[in-house]
Amino acid sequence: MTDKTGGLAGIVVGETAISTVGKEGVGLTYRGYDIHELASKSSFEEVAYLLIYGELPTQKEFNLYQEKLFQLRKLPKELCAVLELIPGNTHPMDVLRTGCSMLGTLEPESKLNDLTQIANRLIATTPGMLLYWYHFHKNKKSIKTETEEKSLAGHFLHLLHGKTPDADLAQALDISMMLYAEHEFNASTFAARVTTSTESDFYSAIVSGIGTLRGPLHGGANEAAMELIQYFKTPDEAAAVVRQMLIDKKKVMGFGHRVYKISDPRSDIIKNLSKKLSEKASDGNLYKIAERIEKLLWDEKKLFPNVDFYSATTYHFMGIPTLMFTPLFVISRLTGWTAHIIEQRGNNRLIRPDATYKGPTPRDYVPVSQRG
Amino acid sequence: MTDKTGGLAGIVVGETAISTVGKEGVGLTYRGYDIHELASKSSFEEVAYLLIYGELPTQKEFNLYQEKLFQLRKLPKELCAVLELIPGNTHPMDVLRTGCSMLGTLEPESKLNDLTQIANRLIATTPGMLLYWYHFHKNKKSIKTETEEKSLAGHFLHLLHGKTPDADLAQALDISMMLYAEHEFNASTFAARVTTSTESDFYSAIVSGIGTLRGPLHGGANEAAMELIQYFKTPDEAAAVVRQMLIDKKKVMGFGHRVYKISDPRSDIIKNLSKKLSEKASDGNLYKIAERIEKLLWDEKKLFPNVDFYSATTYHFMGIPTLMFTPLFVISRLTGWTAHIIEQRGNNRLIRPDATYKGPTPRDYVPVSQRG
Repeated sequence: MTDKTGGLAGIVVGETAISTVGKEGVGLTYRGYDIHELASKSSFEEVAYLLIYGELPTQKEFNLYQEKLFQLRKLPKELCAVLELIPGNTHPMDVLRTGCSMLGTLEPESKLNDLTQIANRLIATTPGMLLYWYHFHKNKKSIKTETEEKSLAGHFLHLLHGKTPDADLAQALDISMMLYAEHEFNASTFAARVTTSTESDFYSAIVSGIGTLRGPLHGGANEAAMELIQYFKTPDEAAAVVRQMLIDKKKVMGFGHRVYKISDPRSDIIKNLSKKLSEKASDGNLYKIAERIEKLLWDEKKLFPNVDFYSATTYHFMGIPTLMFTPLFVISRLTGWTAHIIEQRGNNRLIRPDATYKGPTPRDYVPVSQRG
Repeated sequence: MTDKTGGLAGIVVGETAISTVGKEGVGLTYRGYDIHELASKSSFEEVAYLLIYGELPTQKEFNLYQEKLFQLRKLPKELCAVLELIPGNTHPMDVLRTGCSMLGTLEPESKLNDLTQIANRLIATTPGMLLYWYHFHKNKKSIKTETEEKSLAGHFLHLLHGKTPDADLAQALDISMMLYAEHEFNASTFAARVTTSTESDFYSAIVSGIGTLRGPLHGGANEAAMELIQYFKTPDEAAAVVRQMLIDKKKVMGFGHRVYKISDPRSDIIKNLSKKLSEKASDGNLYKIAERIEKLLWDEKKLFPNVDFYSATTYHFMGIPTLMFTPLFVISRLTGWTAHIIEQRGNNRLIRPDATYKGPTPRDYVPVSQRG
């Protein structure tokens, strides 16, 4: 059997009970719950619990889980020392890749430190990892990575800005983290499953996920979208330049999707958030620029915005530096990766595909002294 | 299209010009050269050049390449500091995963530091990374990671034992590193290609490769094989216990292969090396134990040893600690991974497969206060 399209597009490589992406009539669901319902009624912590443990928590379970994540936020001193050694101009995804790998040497997987325990630890510590490194290098300050914020979204914004965040901003970040939590066999999740399939440890699978998410064709798309949107002063200017990009067949990041063919069910949710935040933002006109680019892509190419496009402006209006957009995706997607690693372990087979050979035919070795 | 067997077994997911694995009549070739010819006439450095640059080097190119690898061996001081922070009882694969990720923050990919440059740097520094960490924690010594050894195999043994290695041992290690250099779309290489397919950076792809190779169903198999062989005092004892393992349907590591169906073309080469080294080794009887296990697996199950089985005793007879077997595999396979990352970039498509959903049907969200 041969993948003739390439990139395994449309090729079913396994089963999953975690989410539906673009299945007829259901759009995006996490364990049966529609993303619109979750985004409007649930919270990131609840969604994390749902993905990792399989069911929504009871009130008691939820309280315990939130408290657990709260207690796990402190970084080991050796990890702080490594974060101090990582240069200040490093790509933040490389900081998380290295930080998570380092934590795997300090608190390795074992019977006493199992995969769900590590997953919760990583969810709780990744905001601190990123922002300890950030403030150490940018502001020459060793911050405490514990706050009184109950939600992880609030905790992130508090660590970033050094104060209790505006409730609207924390809620918007919380919602966006629900949208980014899980997405079936996307490239980073698939990489984590390939790593898991050799019976490697949990950290190795997560580190594969982070490195894979880093690319602009995946998680990096929201950063690329922001760079584009910010480039313009007015919607008209944006329309003119982007029209020319389309003529030149340049890729506009944040549009279209490998699996979704008509629209991305997360896009309207994040667009609404972006609109709401733009009203209070000093550079709220960026929202109008984004909307104009969206209209142009639809009119000219029938391309719809995916979740990354309006995530860009949403995060920007929260005062989050662009280079932290993909790391936020990591913090959120840790939940989906964990669910898939558990699922892969539960019914594992080594993932080892085949290739067609198109190289040189057999040839004789000539000793180096006789080579031309 | 659906993968019905699972694990993408036998499913062709792309083309490659790098190697043939188990293709009819050709066994294992690297860019057209048979592995037997390379193992008997070439060297690891030459094979590295062949894999990374596509052709065998001329004498002048070879000399320059060997000199380049020689010059690149010194570790940055920040990397040494991180290696000191990694606990002494860490799995050495986690040391390499973290060390390579850290180097990616110190010397990131850029136009001035391109992928082949980084590949050579990693090949040159991974022995030092592993052994700096090892001696620092085991012997409380900060070793210099530069030696006068020309070959990487000699360099590795010199750093490990602190003296110029026996020429036979260095040559045996050199040959084993050629055998481990490349193997088509194996799981770690495939993981590196998935990471590359999002247009992520070179280090991220390598780190995915390391984390994936770590598992006992892949690179970790040689360590598992050694643990088994060392468990016995005599061939008879080994035969009795392994026979019982087969009755109990336990997996014996180092036998059989996803792609090879009759034999692993690397196995006879490494077996001969192991035999030769066993004659001088104080515990050379381990070779006889290994041979007896091989015979039993063939007689009872028609399973042949793969490259990992006799690599175990070969490395052991060199005085290499078992936990360094898979790291040696990394140092060698860096060459194959690099070739595949270059190939993937040259004709990229995002690797994003599909899944069949087998989870809960759509269900309504119930607020937490109303849950049972």
